[in-house]
Amino acid sequence: MKKYIALLSVSLIAIVALGFLATDINAKEEERKQINAGRPIAIEKPTFTSQWQRYFPRQFDGWKNTKKSADIVDMIDKYPALAIVWAGYPFSKDYNAPRGHYYSVQDNVNTLRVGAPSDKVDSPLPTACWTCKSPDVVRLMETKGDMEFYTGKWDKWGSEIVNPIGCYDCHYKGELKVKRSFLDKGLQEAKLPTFADSTHQTKRDLVCAQCHSEYYFRPIQNGETTAMVVTLPWKNGLGVEEQMSYYNDGKNFPNGKPFFDFENKISKAKIVKAQHPDYELHLTGIHGKNGVSCADCHMPYKQEGAIKYSDHRVQSPFETMDTSCMVCHRESENKLKAILKEKYDRKELLFGVTVNNLASAHLEAKQAWDSGASDAEMANALNLIREGQWRWDYAVASHGGFFHAPDETLFILAKANDYAQQARVALKEILGKHGAANYVVPDFSSKEKAQALAGWDMKKLVAEKQTFKDTLEQTWIKAAKENGVLDEALRDYKDDRASWFGSK
Amino acid sequence: MKKYIALLSVSLIAIVALGFLATDINAKEEERKQINAGRPIAIEKPTFTSQWQRYFPRQFDGWKNTKKSADIVDMIDKYPALAIVWAGYPFSKDYNAPRGHYYSVQDNVNTLRVGAPSDKVDSPLPTACWTCKSPDVVRLMETKGDMEFYTGKWDKWGSEIVNPIGCYDCHYKGELKVKRSFLDKGLQEAKLPTFADSTHQTKRDLVCAQCHSEYYFRPIQNGETTAMVVTLPWKNGLGVEEQMSYYNDGKNFPNGKPFFDFENKISKAKIVKAQHPDYELHLTGIHGKNGVSCADCHMPYKQEGAIKYSDHRVQSPFETMDTSCMVCHRESENKLKAILKEKYDRKELLFGVTVNNLASAHLEAKQAWDSGASDAEMANALNLIREGQWRWDYAVASHGGFFHAPDETLFILAKANDYAQQARVALKEILGKHGAANYVVPDFSSKEKAQALAGWDMKKLVAEKQTFKDTLEQTWIKAAKENGVLDEALRDYKDDRASWFGSK
Repeated sequence: MKKYIALLSVSLIAIVALGFLATDINAKEEERKQINAGRPIAIEKPTFTSQWQRYFPRQFDGWKNTKKSADIVDMIDKYPALAIVWAGYPFSKDYNAPRGHYYSVQDNVNTLRVGAPSDKVDSPLPTACWTCKSPDVVRLMETKGDMEFYTGKWDKWGSEIVNPIGCYDCHYKGELKVKRSFLDKGLQEAKLPTFADSTHQTKRDLVCAQCHSEYYFRPIQNGETTAMVVTLPWKNGLGVEEQMSYYNDGKNFPNGKPFFDFENKISKAKIVKAQHPDYELHLTGIHGKNGVSCADCHMPYKQEGAIKYSDHRVQSPFETMDTSCMVCHRESENKLKAILKEKYDRKELLFGVTVNNLASAHLEAKQAWDSGASDAEMANALNLIREGQWRWDYAVASHGGFFHAPDETLFILAKANDYAQQARVALKEILGKHGAANYVVPDFSSKEKAQALAGWDMKKLVAEKQTFKDTLEQTWIKAAKENGVLDEALRDYKDDRASWFGSK
Repeated sequence: MKKYIALLSVSLIAIVALGFLATDINAKEEERKQINAGRPIAIEKPTFTSQWQRYFPRQFDGWKNTKKSADIVDMIDKYPALAIVWAGYPFSKDYNAPRGHYYSVQDNVNTLRVGAPSDKVDSPLPTACWTCKSPDVVRLMETKGDMEFYTGKWDKWGSEIVNPIGCYDCHYKGELKVKRSFLDKGLQEAKLPTFADSTHQTKRDLVCAQCHSEYYFRPIQNGETTAMVVTLPWKNGLGVEEQMSYYNDGKNFPNGKPFFDFENKISKAKIVKAQHPDYELHLTGIHGKNGVSCADCHMPYKQEGAIKYSDHRVQSPFETMDTSCMVCHRESENKLKAILKEKYDRKELLFGVTVNNLASAHLEAKQAWDSGASDAEMANALNLIREGQWRWDYAVASHGGFFHAPDETLFILAKANDYAQQARVALKEILGKHGAANYVVPDFSSKEKAQALAGWDMKKLVAEKQTFKDTLEQTWIKAAKENGVLDEALRDYKDDRASWFGSK
């Protein structure tokens, strides 16, 4: 009986304590509502991220921190074979690992890929190369219309697209919103709900998916010229095989032929360049299958007093494991990191093996042509290279794939390498038949050697780029200021061309 | 105030109810203790699983249900390439997917691999091929000693090893126990705790690991003859690369040369046959890393009244998802099954691609020899086949690898296929140099065609086996009965030779 009386007393104390706690929670909730109700949002220039700061000061601070993701990692220096497999395509000139959103415009202007336009020379690339780089793109699409935006060369919008990825890319006032129309078109082709029809949790994926997906530039006639329109190849489904089946089916394209982004200059293989199918790969992984959104890990919730908000420093969850991972996983960070290190290492090894086999195949194909092989003899080998390179690129262009979908990524890489090796087996046979069984692939073990094989005069490209930066780029910045489209409060980054062009 | 009084009343009722519940739980616990204390265990013949029944009736029922895992799946029929890659090795004669423990002796006696011994002809295989098939092995090791057990040909123990895998393989009285000494030797080589020094949870792995691991037969001099001793290749570690580094290092072997199980009859490549590294692969997967034991999923706990016991029908957890998976995972079975189906399909695809490339490489090597290639020219290609085949076999001989360690399994298969393809590239070059660039690999798309290429006269092998079953096997059974080593209570399986030899 004594035991029951003691239990009863403890229960009574607990009940009273709970009462106080409830009062406290109710007070905090009231405070939260007041704060969140806020002032009505009235932003004069939504492309100016600095103007969103007073309404969303914590989100702005997070966004500004994307500036800290500043390291420049030269991928061609790390994997010289990239210059071979992309020969004839701008990515073989330079390709750095992506940096924080803060650098999106700067990096797009600085890359050798867009060339060195001047008063007399256009960029080799279309306007579409701006599409995911800036909220100014949303403004141009709204004011000029999609077709006008997508028509012409990249330098057409140099003085208009000047602010890095910011609030207006994903938000209208306080809400999630995607204004780039190709996302909804892609979703409709895939028979998926549009952005507006999606759940809030899915929208937390889709604002990212608008840019972190595979896409291609679809040529669409616009009067006398051709617009290059960003298009998601999702008609047959979002998987790597479904997307390739779409590209391989000539019925999907105006010219009735299978699609290719470029013809490799060395091998003449017609290549589809996979971009960054982060979203599609994510969906095949265990986090995606369990409804974890991009934002859950890359923009984890933080708590400050009564305010809960998502961290807008979009970054690797390795940097925020306490708020990104530990919300669900009850394990030590070190244990999780060790597991992820293994996953990363597996991917890296297959990445290297595959890209080296692809590069070798391109070079062996060139030798086969030089030895007198015919179109008919080469068709199968070139197609094997195309199939292999697509899968390899798909698996690795999505930098987080090793984490988002570890087995799918390895599976795709395994298939990619099998295609690459099939191509090499076929090419060895052709070389044998044409008396070139002894052919040895030339050394492409450094960036310099590989880019020389790709046929680039890198010194010339860099010199032209320096001129562009001293002349036309300055004109663009000046014009943007005068026209009131440059968010000067944020244009505080230094001219870091040295780290782009000076080092490697 | 009214709210508080209501809460108080509910609390009081709950407290009283909890009191009753606690009394009930205490009573059940008392009952459980009484039952588990049981009678002292006294088993006259521990190799007779039927004698354990009265002490462990539920575990016995589970064990007996292993009989239900009875399907015979002919793997060479499913993958004819197996006959090529194992040419010259008994597995190319026949290889069925493993069945329930109940069939371990029967299947070992029936397989063509052990040959058709008679009074005049020995089995081609050593006694070691019995090692994991029966508790009689434990008895023989205890009574005759390891060296005597491991010396001689397989048929030496035909009348002694007659009872299928049972209680005495893993238990001494009621406790977990491993009496096969090679497990502790392997653990010590790997600098891991011995069985006795391991935690209970690890022992729940290790009783399985004694047999579900990679092993090889180490030749050890025993007087004037050579014993073939089951040995775990764990000195450099338990991973696929560490085990191969062990086999590749001649210093580890009496003859000072890299180890091989057989020379492929077609290509002359020296092959290490991976057996079934289930345990090693399991350790690399997420379940293994989180301390989930084999028994947790394959022998899940069941509750009957006050008794909690583990289900000794060792089987695929797909059949027991409610007790195997749902203890930890809060998801629908169908959702988990769909995810696992994807993992299985990925493995199956890479399995097929890789084994076909390996088979092609063996055949291309034969053609290279026939075309006049020298030992020096062939060395690299044959070694590439060896490295590839080891990894392929390692990844797939462990049938559950696609689940136990999905990414490690795909990673190993990707590397295996890369080696196989490297071999093919090298062989194409050799063929080209010797005027055989046009060589086309012969058709091995059916079991018949592949086994003919492997050089087997299957009709003869089956006829000899039938004779063995009608003569020597009958003698063995008779002798075992007379000597009192056959657990006749369990010897109720019908002679199912038809399903072994009659169909394919």
